[in-house]
Amino acid sequence: MTAETPFTQRLAEFAANTPSDAMDADAMQVLRLSLLDWLSVGLAGIHEPVSRICRDMVLDEGGAAQASVFGSTVKLPARAAALSNGTTSHALDYDDTHFAHIGHPSVAIFSAALAVAERENANTMAFLEAALIGMEVSIRVGVWLGRSHYQTGFHQTATAGAFGAAAACARLMGFDADQTAATLGLTATRASGLKAQFGTMGKPFNAGLAAANGVEAATLVARGFVPNPLALEGALGFGAIHAGEGDGGAALAGLGQDWMFTDVRHKFHACCHGLHATLEALALMPEIDAGEVERIDILTHDRWMTVCNQPAPTTGLGAKFSYTTVAAMTLLGHSTAALNSYDDALCAQPELVALRDRVTVAVDPALEETQARVTISLRSGGTHDRSFDLNAPMSLGDRETRVRAKAAALLGQDRADALWRLCLDRSDDLTVYTVLPG
Amino acid sequence: MTAETPFTQRLAEFAANTPSDAMDADAMQVLRLSLLDWLSVGLAGIHEPVSRICRDMVLDEGGAAQASVFGSTVKLPARAAALSNGTTSHALDYDDTHFAHIGHPSVAIFSAALAVAERENANTMAFLEAALIGMEVSIRVGVWLGRSHYQTGFHQTATAGAFGAAAACARLMGFDADQTAATLGLTATRASGLKAQFGTMGKPFNAGLAAANGVEAATLVARGFVPNPLALEGALGFGAIHAGEGDGGAALAGLGQDWMFTDVRHKFHACCHGLHATLEALALMPEIDAGEVERIDILTHDRWMTVCNQPAPTTGLGAKFSYTTVAAMTLLGHSTAALNSYDDALCAQPELVALRDRVTVAVDPALEETQARVTISLRSGGTHDRSFDLNAPMSLGDRETRVRAKAAALLGQDRADALWRLCLDRSDDLTVYTVLPG
Repeated sequence: MTAETPFTQRLAEFAANTPSDAMDADAMQVLRLSLLDWLSVGLAGIHEPVSRICRDMVLDEGGAAQASVFGSTVKLPARAAALSNGTTSHALDYDDTHFAHIGHPSVAIFSAALAVAERENANTMAFLEAALIGMEVSIRVGVWLGRSHYQTGFHQTATAGAFGAAAACARLMGFDADQTAATLGLTATRASGLKAQFGTMGKPFNAGLAAANGVEAATLVARGFVPNPLALEGALGFGAIHAGEGDGGAALAGLGQDWMFTDVRHKFHACCHGLHATLEALALMPEIDAGEVERIDILTHDRWMTVCNQPAPTTGLGAKFSYTTVAAMTLLGHSTAALNSYDDALCAQPELVALRDRVTVAVDPALEETQARVTISLRSGGTHDRSFDLNAPMSLGDRETRVRAKAAALLGQDRADALWRLCLDRSDDLTVYTVLPG
Repeated sequence: MTAETPFTQRLAEFAANTPSDAMDADAMQVLRLSLLDWLSVGLAGIHEPVSRICRDMVLDEGGAAQASVFGSTVKLPARAAALSNGTTSHALDYDDTHFAHIGHPSVAIFSAALAVAERENANTMAFLEAALIGMEVSIRVGVWLGRSHYQTGFHQTATAGAFGAAAACARLMGFDADQTAATLGLTATRASGLKAQFGTMGKPFNAGLAAANGVEAATLVARGFVPNPLALEGALGFGAIHAGEGDGGAALAGLGQDWMFTDVRHKFHACCHGLHATLEALALMPEIDAGEVERIDILTHDRWMTVCNQPAPTTGLGAKFSYTTVAAMTLLGHSTAALNSYDDALCAQPELVALRDRVTVAVDPALEETQARVTISLRSGGTHDRSFDLNAPMSLGDRETRVRAKAAALLGQDRADALWRLCLDRSDDLTVYTVLPG
């Protein structure tokens, strides 16, 4: 393996040859948190229209009982299960995010890896290791495609995600580096997904197709399919013709030692990402009685003013894009992590409206997109002032507390606790899939 | 419908609203010839490794018995059947070509339309009309994407093909223009296929995925999927971000009156396309006894000299890229349409070698890529001189004779005649699919 080794070959050797004991313990713990997070948003997403539509299509197709499906007790072929589960787990847009990947890694990777693990009777550790490999490959490919790929209009969750899903499946199937490269090369002719679908059912579907593409490529290569193994790179390769930056140095830096996946971020509020720094700053406040609040002043980045600054929404959906509303919700004790907090009735509550109307929102040019500053002025004359940056590091313990609290908000405490025990499992049984039917 | 009507909406209105009696009779007759051609290459392609690999994958997945599959008596879900049939019918690379589309229309369109027609119990005329709509849409989208799309590295057979497949399925499912536009918009996030796969199993697979993508999009829209219906066009649309030229004027010219599909070309020789003009010129010669031939001089375009000018191949595959060999084969009465003519033993036949060695090949700068000129000099002193241009028009009668002869070369005369009777069927039964198992 030299500097001239093709990018795909480097990724393939990493995926095929990284020994189990070289997997970083912190990365593996974050992976377990992402698994809990993915299971939570998947189970909470089964009733979304797009989830039902995709699930019903593959259930009507039916087929071999290979893999479990969110929201159904019927098992399906792995390729179909991956399509349905990827779509369902992204339906709420509440899953994890990796800012260097520029995408949502878990929805593609876990959906593909779990389906193939179940089909191939892999054990828990093999599944988790393959998922960690897939996460890392999807992030590295995302970095390699770069911001130009995303800005041009490609949805990295779907495109880079498909390559990560393919790598995870290849690892689960015991492929050597050449077979893994073939799987990535075949994925290159199948990978797709447009940002033009944002705001429609097409966005979650993009996650589903990423997962299905990875499963399909690995399944075909196992049967002897011989594609161009280098179709990801080169002058006619996927990257070059999809506005990829192709910075192999950045994408391969520390591969095998540094786990970029560890920087994944979980969403802790079921609303627009532009509100999250404000909500985190509010969470740092001491306990404040809402009746004592004179005014709340929020400073944020200019970008969000046209995105999520509805001053007086009347619907639950509108509340998800309203600084004033979510600030009032927090002080009144409504969970901003729970989906059913955001409803039309809430927006009309006199207590909430009164508090909401004491909130101001303004731009501070010194703040980054990930930062916010909140000042609460009390009737007594005192003030509390807190700031937050979503890019700030968070300890593993804090992450666990937050992800488990989110799971509890979505599914109830008992179910969340049971799911977390499952995610911590180190046995030979792959029992995670038994919870997918919900 | 005005000049400002979005491109997708124009295609959708054409697909949904073109009445049966507005379908051009000549185009419909050419469509029947393409159907015979597609069935012939599909049935002849079932033993190719890529066909077996894709078929075995979907057979192992199994599922609802909705649609027939080339090479299997087991029916499968329409989406799976389309994937397998598209791959199988392109495996020999012997299917039809449309030069304005820059692709092979039948492999995507018939594979999708037949699977959905069978699933939906459509009759023969509904199937043929939907296929003709799909062909026309795929060609129009191909023109709209343009040569820049192809030159950049996208495989129009797969990309434009997916939109045509989607339109055919939408028509079969009785969609109105808005539903059809939604089907095209959803296809935009799924369409893919790289030229980087040329020369590998990935090329025929690209045809399969085009067909499957069209079936999938229509199936989801029928269930209520709401995508961005204009994701094909606009600044973030499929065309703009895949190096599409976006010349709506050229792509929509005469839509509904002129059927660009009629210009489709069928391959009549199971060898490299660069040899076809030479073989057609030879076919125009009077009957010549091979023993009387002193020499054969072929003039061709420079482009082909590095592609298919192997002077003395020793393998059947080499023979498919050899002017000298195919010229000798023709004069000795070996069918250049039959797959099994090209074998290693033929290349060693003393009679063939002797004649082959009397062939010269040279470049004539005055010739186009589609043209060739052949001069046969006889021992008696006389010469015969014939030229051919693959772009020259061919009468419907001549086309029928040639396509049926090709079918007979691939499948035997009796089977070819039976298939042609099936293609001419105007009954309410859709019996074409009964022949797919072979």
